[in-house]
Amino acid sequence: MPILVQKFGGTSVANAEKIHRAAKRAIEAHKNGYQVVVVASARGKQTDELIADAMEINPNPPKREMDMLLSTGEQQTVSLFAMACYAMGQKAISFTGSQISMLTDDTHTKARIQSIGTEKIRKKLDEGYIVVVAGFQGVDAEGNITTLGRGGSDTSAVALAAALGASFCEIYTDVDGIYTTDPRIYPKAVKMEQISYDEMLELASLGAGVMHSRSIEFGKKYNVTIHVRSSMNNNPGTLITHEVPKMEGILVSGATIQKELAKISLIGVDNKPGNAAKIFSHLAKARVSVNDIIQTEVSPEKANILFTVNKSDLDAARQAIEEIRESVHCQNVFVREDVAEVSIVGVGMRSHYGVADRMFQALADAKINIDSITTSEIRISCLVNVEDGDKALIAVCDAFQLDRPANQRK
Amino acid sequence: MPILVQKFGGTSVANAEKIHRAAKRAIEAHKNGYQVVVVASARGKQTDELIADAMEINPNPPKREMDMLLSTGEQQTVSLFAMACYAMGQKAISFTGSQISMLTDDTHTKARIQSIGTEKIRKKLDEGYIVVVAGFQGVDAEGNITTLGRGGSDTSAVALAAALGASFCEIYTDVDGIYTTDPRIYPKAVKMEQISYDEMLELASLGAGVMHSRSIEFGKKYNVTIHVRSSMNNNPGTLITHEVPKMEGILVSGATIQKELAKISLIGVDNKPGNAAKIFSHLAKARVSVNDIIQTEVSPEKANILFTVNKSDLDAARQAIEEIRESVHCQNVFVREDVAEVSIVGVGMRSHYGVADRMFQALADAKINIDSITTSEIRISCLVNVEDGDKALIAVCDAFQLDRPANQRK
Repeated sequence: MPILVQKFGGTSVANAEKIHRAAKRAIEAHKNGYQVVVVASARGKQTDELIADAMEINPNPPKREMDMLLSTGEQQTVSLFAMACYAMGQKAISFTGSQISMLTDDTHTKARIQSIGTEKIRKKLDEGYIVVVAGFQGVDAEGNITTLGRGGSDTSAVALAAALGASFCEIYTDVDGIYTTDPRIYPKAVKMEQISYDEMLELASLGAGVMHSRSIEFGKKYNVTIHVRSSMNNNPGTLITHEVPKMEGILVSGATIQKELAKISLIGVDNKPGNAAKIFSHLAKARVSVNDIIQTEVSPEKANILFTVNKSDLDAARQAIEEIRESVHCQNVFVREDVAEVSIVGVGMRSHYGVADRMFQALADAKINIDSITTSEIRISCLVNVEDGDKALIAVCDAFQLDRPANQRK
Repeated sequence: MPILVQKFGGTSVANAEKIHRAAKRAIEAHKNGYQVVVVASARGKQTDELIADAMEINPNPPKREMDMLLSTGEQQTVSLFAMACYAMGQKAISFTGSQISMLTDDTHTKARIQSIGTEKIRKKLDEGYIVVVAGFQGVDAEGNITTLGRGGSDTSAVALAAALGASFCEIYTDVDGIYTTDPRIYPKAVKMEQISYDEMLELASLGAGVMHSRSIEFGKKYNVTIHVRSSMNNNPGTLITHEVPKMEGILVSGATIQKELAKISLIGVDNKPGNAAKIFSHLAKARVSVNDIIQTEVSPEKANILFTVNKSDLDAARQAIEEIRESVHCQNVFVREDVAEVSIVGVGMRSHYGVADRMFQALADAKINIDSITTSEIRISCLVNVEDGDKALIAVCDAFQLDRPANQRK
């Protein structure tokens, strides 16, 4: 029998009624001939409540203990989920990450999965159980409980699908699927039927926020097709998969905007080998996560280095730069906090001319000034004034017809 | 360094402030030269809330899943407790029952401890940590989470003390210690300085309710002195220990009353070998827990068999008796639900005459009719009309001077 992994996010299991509804869905799949593995998140706002409990006791709690605390949220959901299955006459069994040997490294609160034991799960599936696994959590080699970071249940689910050789993983959530852009800013945005792993990775790293990046990496590596869909209806959602022929014609799949950014400009840095490495390794040591980097030569001796960071990392970044600027002879440091980054993502742009022009022209027509530009193989990003951000996103979406299904675009 | 086990009940860790206070106490003991192992229960009413969550989803939840659910309560407390220690500059580490190999049988919701791994705990104690262990929970040989039944954290604590060779286990609770009787009925009741394991076992089985019976059995078996005391002050509480010389003179240590009882009388049962066994094994199969049993011969051929059960078991008991009564030729079955049992407990009564008289005389003086009497080596119980119950308890307490410290009684 084929194995199907279904992941239910916190909003899909927020109360007894929703847990029953989710359990019903798992039971239907079981009746349709699948061996069903469910991965569940903590109920509703429970993780936030547990974090608040911890903060009240210790504003700087040790990470190992944080993992011990937060992992209880998912453990509660999976036991309640199994009970709901029994209430409908279907046997089910719940497991913690530790119980199924979801082995991770020991980086508490941000652990990475190393291996998954499947023997126990397969045995229970073969005995006719629905197996309900606590998402988000694992165990290190010493038996300490670890967690995978916020949104980590997606990764648990796709990694389990990969380990079990399942070719499908359903991610049930409170949205219909992945949209071409944020519908709160561009109400004409449409749901994508499918998107490639690479594009989804770019969208996720640009803050599109629907999926945990690691889960998409697992999907790509192990050929697991991920179906992001609503837990409230039976509509098809969005398939995240390898590129397929019919996607060839699509130039741009989606667009994003990031507003919580700051741009740091290091002016007049000595233009000699190793200086960029020195700067960015120092930032990494300070645990600053750097987004885009632009370096330009201003003279044979001097270069300007620009990069963006999330605003939450700005203080740490400033301090790290102050510590290092002397040693790279940086003449000036400028920080802009009033920027937004508008990006388009699409596998199509790899092999097509004219995509960049079209974006720049759209912004020019909307009278929006571009501060700086960066590109990757499947992405073009423009930094603009934050007050122009929404207008810029709308202009770009209109230019690439992101209000239409992919096959109706010109 | 000597090891001290401190157990904090749900009311002693109900909120952040109380967790801090409990952690402070553990840190003090650590500074006083002890290696400290803390055992903690779920916070406040949390276990009740989780049970309510389960009942909403499935009124008859599978016990394995119940254990999976309820064990999260203690796991949350221990991680928060460790965080509180860190907030005061003391390193601490929390463990689930599973992580320290608190091995039990697989009787979910009422599991019995089989063995405890101490290596991990000793290692962390030697490294200077306070070790915080989740009470109430264990793990079976298959890795399933089990729980020890309500109040099981006491047993976790005393069993850990035994396994670690600690001679002391402190039980912190919301009362000052063990009282000679229930102060709600007999306000002059006084706190006992000490009580023997056997007496405490009788009191616990008579519903005195302060301690889980299994924990006292462990204490007795492994020579762990149990100190029941308040988490709100530093007053000495009650020591539960082996009999010590100065206790010799005490005839009666405490008195109890049980009101949630029913008495079942089987009249005219065939008086032949095996009939009593037949009746009580049938009741056991129906999971009816029988308290006292009295059998009296009424003729060479016939006997009456009387026994008491908790009211919660009455329906099951009635049904079991209906099934069996034909086969033992029982002529009549009477049930009384309007009874209460007043008991006195004391090691002293073993070797002293006059204790029983004094009890019966006290009841007679108070004009209370005795329905039936049972005795054990350290206990005398009288069944009375439930409306006379409180008056009977007060009369007995006065007769044995349970309003005075033990050494001031005559």
